[in-house]
Amino acid sequence: MFSGAQISLYPMSDEFVGVILGSLSALDPYRDRLRIETDDISTLLVGTPDVVFAAMRDLFVAAAKTGKHCVLHATLSRGCPGEPDDPICQVAEMTGPMRPLDERKAQALAAVAAIPSSGQSVAAQFSLYTLGIGQHMDEIYGCIDFIKTSGVFDRSKNFCTKLRGDAAPVFATVGEAFVRFGPPQGHVTIDLTVSANSPSKA
Amino acid sequence: MFSGAQISLYPMSDEFVGVILGSLSALDPYRDRLRIETDDISTLLVGTPDVVFAAMRDLFVAAAKTGKHCVLHATLSRGCPGEPDDPICQVAEMTGPMRPLDERKAQALAAVAAIPSSGQSVAAQFSLYTLGIGQHMDEIYGCIDFIKTSGVFDRSKNFCTKLRGDAAPVFATVGEAFVRFGPPQGHVTIDLTVSANSPSKA
Repeated sequence: MFSGAQISLYPMSDEFVGVILGSLSALDPYRDRLRIETDDISTLLVGTPDVVFAAMRDLFVAAAKTGKHCVLHATLSRGCPGEPDDPICQVAEMTGPMRPLDERKAQALAAVAAIPSSGQSVAAQFSLYTLGIGQHMDEIYGCIDFIKTSGVFDRSKNFCTKLRGDAAPVFATVGEAFVRFGPPQGHVTIDLTVSANSPSKA
Repeated sequence: MFSGAQISLYPMSDEFVGVILGSLSALDPYRDRLRIETDDISTLLVGTPDVVFAAMRDLFVAAAKTGKHCVLHATLSRGCPGEPDDPICQVAEMTGPMRPLDERKAQALAAVAAIPSSGQSVAAQFSLYTLGIGQHMDEIYGCIDFIKTSGVFDRSKNFCTKLRGDAAPVFATVGEAFVRFGPPQGHVTIDLTVSANSPSKA
């Protein structure tokens, strides 16, 4: 299994470089469990989904606490047939046979309920793609059922689902969607946008 | 068929609201062929892929010409089984039987070569997802072959492909990837990021 994310942080500020550099220490607790590579468009985080999601959350919360309007975008992927297996990415949810959808929904809800709050409100939207399988919409609809009861569901939009709430359950909800839906060793991707301090509250 | 994009424009500037509002007139030539809805995270453009890509390109070029570091993100989708058919989205490439891969690559290259330059340099990266089919990587590898000869290929990255060049062939290359790969009436999505005026040139 190979899993990770290409992430980008966008502070809508003349001080965007300072906001980004000032937030990077939030990644320090995770650096020994991640492979990190940066270019001019995004930063690659390779690691298990729990570590990747916790690192993204803490980075984004650190940036949002400046009060500036900030957006984080992530292109997440696991199980891509074109990527080599990597020992840094092994995790129990992504091995073994596929469990019944109701069991996975219940596990996802329990995991989100156990997360302590971060104190930072965010809005987010994401799309889940389960690739290489014929009945991909069954997994997507199952995931949407879970999201509607996760406590951070805002509304369905064309092409994505919108969340709103504390950053901790929002990132946890997307993280559970990523690991619990689609076949355990299948190719699953997420297109995620998280926003804080927007002047145009909807 | 239903097709369109959720797009967001991120100017890294204290004047981000002014940069966004000042760029919106670039959409005017396309407004009669698009359905547009905005909230605090993104703007939905529903229409045929050629119109959606031209509108995104002109909007982004208008913002980038301010000289500010700007990023555009788009979540593109066509043929999602959960969306209703819409007459505003009909286009010849998305009907009829699937043509041989080599023929589609040649059509895509010819379309990109015919595009006049915009005068704005950009870097971009995107991921193409062809959903609901078993051999999804054949279409993705076919698309990557096309991109490598499109004239704007920069490099392969984990989870995505990076482009660099004039905004016009860059947007055209992604647009051709969107309509020519995956089954004509299949569910295809793209996760696209375009950046200009970054201080960290890679």
